[in-house]
Amino acid sequence: MKYIENEIYLNVRFSEVDSLGIVWHGNYLKFFEDGRESLGLIYGMSYQELYDKRLVVPIVDTQISFKSVVKFGDKLKLVTRFYKQKAAKLHYKYWVYNETTGQLSATGSTTQVFVNEELELQLFTPEVFEEWKNSLDWKEE
Amino acid sequence: MKYIENEIYLNVRFSEVDSLGIVWHGNYLKFFEDGRESLGLIYGMSYQELYDKRLVVPIVDTQISFKSVVKFGDKLKLVTRFYKQKAAKLHYKYWVYNETTGQLSATGSTTQVFVNEELELQLFTPEVFEEWKNSLDWKEE
Amino acid sequence: MKYIENEIYLNVRFSEVDSLGIVWHGNYLKFFEDGRESLGLIYGMSYQELYDKRLVVPIVDTQISFKSVVKFGDKLKLVTRFYKQKAAKLHYKYWVYNETTGQLSATGSTTQVFVNEELELQLFTPEVFEEWKNSLDWKEE
Amino acid sequence: MKYIENEIYLNVRFSEVDSLGIVWHGNYLKFFEDGRESLGLIYGMSYQELYDKRLVVPIVDTQISFKSVVKFGDKLKLVTRFYKQKAAKLHYKYWVYNETTGQLSATGSTTQVFVNEELELQLFTPEVFEEWKNSLDWKEE
Repeated sequence: MKYIENEIYLNVRFSEVDSLGIVWHGNYLKFFEDGRESLGLIYGMSYQELYDKRLVVPIVDTQISFKSVVKFGDKLKLVTRFYKQKAAKLHYKYWVYNETTGQLSATGSTTQVFVNEELELQLFTPEVFEEWKNSLDWKEE
Repeated sequence: MKYIENEIYLNVRFSEVDSLGIVWHGNYLKFFEDGRESLGLIYGMSYQELYDKRLVVPIVDTQISFKSVVKFGDKLKLVTRFYKQKAAKLHYKYWVYNETTGQLSATGSTTQVFVNEELELQLFTPEVFEEWKNSLDWKEE
Repeated sequence: MKYIENEIYLNVRFSEVDSLGIVWHGNYLKFFEDGRESLGLIYGMSYQELYDKRLVVPIVDTQISFKSVVKFGDKLKLVTRFYKQKAAKLHYKYWVYNETTGQLSATGSTTQVFVNEELELQLFTPEVFEEWKNSLDWKEE
Repeated sequence: MKYIENEIYLNVRFSEVDSLGIVWHGNYLKFFEDGRESLGLIYGMSYQELYDKRLVVPIVDTQISFKSVVKFGDKLKLVTRFYKQKAAKLHYKYWVYNETTGQLSATGSTTQVFVNEELELQLFTPEVFEEWKNSLDWKEE
């Protein structure tokens, strides 16, 4: 499959750690959001650009698998990969690496769809988004 | 001072507890928000009613004093008091009681102002809000 | 499959709503946590009881599918179902209903494993947990 | 008053913005936490070092004044200042600048106390902390 990808580094916040001393699992969805935005800023489809183009893309599916724990103070590397596809959907995969321990911490995925301003599902990819996809220099998986 | 007030009961969420095993201090601002909304629903100035009247009231000041810790599983009682005042401001005070230990857990306050849809400060209380204030049956502190 | 289940009602917090005016997707993981704890309190395996028995059960997998949006002020009903299984895992499914619109809002699942106090994976279900499972009055799916 | 200080830069997360399109006020307490940790890492009293020295320092008071709104995508600069004082307390002040608009966004303060592992208040500053304070090169306000 064709994709574009990006890497960012994240610090774990004290308030993101639960009473077991590890990052509360729900916070990974914030990390994924950081990854999407970072990728969008580089490739020209950031949240602001989506907003300016009146593209509303809520998440309809997400999945996370946790491989090893992350503690306060650990440094994380997040790889975010966006896949080219024909359907009117945005599909991302994520890999969270714990740079402090050298272990893979989690993998995940999210799927987004296009809705109009009344939040109704759009079955076709908006033209402005197709044009953006066609302008990218895709890698091959 | 004249006021109206309300009591609600809250359960502490696992995700609200930090690695010390106590409620992370920032979560009290969520409790205060629950208190304001609950008071608003009873007295006819809930978030939805504010929105319908195009009243936008961001918080401009908040203060919290922590008196005793709250652990996961503790039951909380929140007293929220709204004060009548002449200035174009909304002033609330809060008391959080830990029903499990019988101790006062925290006190706090918030101040909100009126802004227009461009988020610019409004110096006068909107008429619809004045009318609402005048319709209330105030208690005396 | 055999299961036990529980229903709870939830209010959406202002701070849980994002700039699209809908509940931010990551907050559903907090709802699921509320559901697990509520079920645990009824059936005798709450967070406190897990802690007292030195059972540590981090989440290793979660999945959420979003079906319809939830707005501030909407009332939610959460159905949480815990499945009996032989593996040393805890498997839950969740259904979030928007009581205000009458629509199914989301479905989800979580899987937890047993770890020791060094957070190392345990391959067998602890005896105290097996005994608890055997004491339950399971329903059949 | 004598102080040490530090500056960090922060990005606003999508999930930190509320339905008014501005950073939800409670998130500033997360920013302040980032500031304290950053200062601690530089001056040798990070969360990990506090933990290793068995110093537990919960927040007992916090105050925030909001001066101008912060939107998604805005860059923030946070100045965190730690004050030298005789009492067994940790006192910080914070200044959040919106680098995108050039405006001061918020000011705040936090006070922490020393507690023992049973979370009981300690009236005297632990010796190891006094030594750390004496080792610093303080500036004068």
